Amino acid sequence: MNIIEIITKKKNKQVLSQKEIDFFVQGYTNNTITDYQAAALIMAIYINGMTEEETLNLTISMTKSGNILDLSDIAENIVDKHSTGGIGDKVTLIAMPIIASLGIPVVKMSGRGLGITGGTEDKLEAIPGYHTRIPIEELKQNVKDIGISLVAQTEDLVPADKKLYALRDAIGCVDSIPLIASSIMSKKIALGANGIVLDITCGKGAFMQDICQARELAKMCAMIGKLAKKQIVCVLTNMDEPLGYAVGNTLEVIEAVKALQGEMAEDVKEVVVAIVMQMMYLSGKYPYVKENEKKVMEVIRNGRAYEKLKELVQKQGGDVNYIENIENFPKAPWIEPVIAEKTGWVETLDAEIVGEIGLLLGIGRQKKEDAIDPM
Amino acid sequence: MNIIEIITKKKNKQVLSQKEIDFFVQGYTNNTITDYQAAALIMAIYINGMTEEETLNLTISMTKSGNILDLSDIAENIVDKHSTGGIGDKVTLIAMPIIASLGIPVVKMSGRGLGITGGTEDKLEAIPGYHTRIPIEELKQNVKDIGISLVAQTEDLVPADKKLYALRDAIGCVDSIPLIASSIMSKKIALGANGIVLDITCGKGAFMQDICQARELAKMCAMIGKLAKKQIVCVLTNMDEPLGYAVGNTLEVIEAVKALQGEMAEDVKEVVVAIVMQMMYLSGKYPYVKENEKKVMEVIRNGRAYEKLKELVQKQGGDVNYIENIENFPKAPWIEPVIAEKTGWVETLDAEIVGEIGLLLGIGRQKKEDAIDPM
Repeated sequence: MNIIEIITKKKNKQVLSQKEIDFFVQGYTNNTITDYQAAALIMAIYINGMTEEETLNLTISMTKSGNILDLSDIAENIVDKHSTGGIGDKVTLIAMPIIASLGIPVVKMSGRGLGITGGTEDKLEAIPGYHTRIPIEELKQNVKDIGISLVAQTEDLVPADKKLYALRDAIGCVDSIPLIASSIMSKKIALGANGIVLDITCGKGAFMQDICQARELAKMCAMIGKLAKKQIVCVLTNMDEPLGYAVGNTLEVIEAVKALQGEMAEDVKEVVVAIVMQMMYLSGKYPYVKENEKKVMEVIRNGRAYEKLKELVQKQGGDVNYIENIENFPKAPWIEPVIAEKTGWVETLDAEIVGEIGLLLGIGRQKKEDAIDPM
Repeated sequence: MNIIEIITKKKNKQVLSQKEIDFFVQGYTNNTITDYQAAALIMAIYINGMTEEETLNLTISMTKSGNILDLSDIAENIVDKHSTGGIGDKVTLIAMPIIASLGIPVVKMSGRGLGITGGTEDKLEAIPGYHTRIPIEELKQNVKDIGISLVAQTEDLVPADKKLYALRDAIGCVDSIPLIASSIMSKKIALGANGIVLDITCGKGAFMQDICQARELAKMCAMIGKLAKKQIVCVLTNMDEPLGYAVGNTLEVIEAVKALQGEMAEDVKEVVVAIVMQMMYLSGKYPYVKENEKKVMEVIRNGRAYEKLKELVQKQGGDVNYIENIENFPKAPWIEPVIAEKTGWVETLDAEIVGEIGLLLGIGRQKKEDAIDPM
């Protein structure tokens, strides 16, 4: 077996075997296959596609390229969520304390922002003192103690995905359904959850701009999940406009705190409730989906979800003072109100443009090496 | 303009503009575009194809990547030939002295062997003392003095093709019609000839295995030639079996010498005559193609073509003694006759298998760094 034969097969629209896909993923991860050979294969996959079986095999090969988290000592059923990314998407910061306050253990690893879409890791780091990088044993201990830990993805998680994602980005091959599906699902499988809610964003501020593509991605992820013996629920959410009121790491933390105090924008609430209801269902503890919304609103009203956020921040080394007094968060040195010159209403806000402005202001990274500006 | 936009366009089956193709070829030649980005674009071109105009633009961009030979001080009309490669193909060694002995100036740069197919440069180097690498001024002087010079391709000739060919080889994208056509034609245009005969080989021992592909390549090259204001004639030759009796650099030189002495295998003769007749026509000096065969046979019979070969070898520093006494050429240390065990006839010889055995014995190179065994 050699890589030129594998490239040639895919170039000629043939189906790759599990062994061939393993050979590629292993070889590329340990640098025996060059970037240009991987680029040629990725382009052939982009144009000629992959069958469901090939996509599953690619996912499994990628999962096996790094460590796989074993969470069986924490709980029988671990539920996780993943979003394909959006502008102003602070759902994880709100949903996870709610889930934990409902007695469902939360072990959540999040990534950094990609392109114009934000990342939960960057938002967590906007909380002064919060440690996103802690040893696995400490993470597990935190979950045993308070039922929740939100951390950064470890470096050894699916190393093949890191290399492949950077390559896809450099050759204009990000928006391929089998490649996105295997990238998402390999990480989710490696993270050890049994039940996964996927928030597939669709619109101007998302990778998927069209609803048909988003549906196709959802189907592909569900298929992979089923074959990998995971329970999957996909939620499709609109990302033509930013989610909620704030975009930017510190501002989104403040919006999340307010949401858990009961002051939540309607669009944010709709997404949070939809995702949490499904996670509750997948946990096995709340089998009647329709009754779950009431329970979500209850833990917000009685302050238990908000208390859980404070417990989490304290446990991870963060300064709870900021959560209790959001006015203490650092403010941007320049704040420029935009005053309407006449009466009217804002009909729409283009999520892509808002995302691009955010990127220029330092919310995300234009290059991998760039630093984040939390304000 | 950036390379990711260009890759994305071709990935989405769009037509690239002349400026975009120039941007790619220049950027790749001077290393501002990476190998993996070039590999992705080449694969997209392989799968999605190129229009005639794109192929012409690619050819012109590649031609401009290096020096362009100006032969106008030698003659008004310079004719050249090119073969897409074969097993036992010693046509250049026989045809060019014939052409020169007919009073048509010959300036020919040849390449090394590629894969299982041999290269004229390697064959010339099998003549003890022969210099294949001489300055351009010396080459021109030789043509003025004796009407012929056969040399190696200079390093500064179409550098883009060298990089692109090595890349195509490493990603299984050699057999693409627009890429082969632009590779051949960019070199031919850079070499400064006005009339070009292309010998497009087809069969088991050639890059093109199927006659339809060979015809398509011929049409594409003719189209590029026409638009670049060159006169082009394409000859399609069968390469299912090796050409002539000998395969191997020294052995083929010996066969060529014998051919010019009048002892020429029928299949070699057919190809040599077909190509020379067309070159004579393109030179403008022999406008009646049908009468040209007689003239070819005449310069072989009267020894003028053979004398021209000796002049050439002497002029390029080679030892004419070997040409006059072919038994002096070094022999292989191991010679193993294969004796038939019963009466019968050899029905066919597979050119690909013969080529592969030759490659293993050192006729060509498996890797670029490999040395050639002239025996």
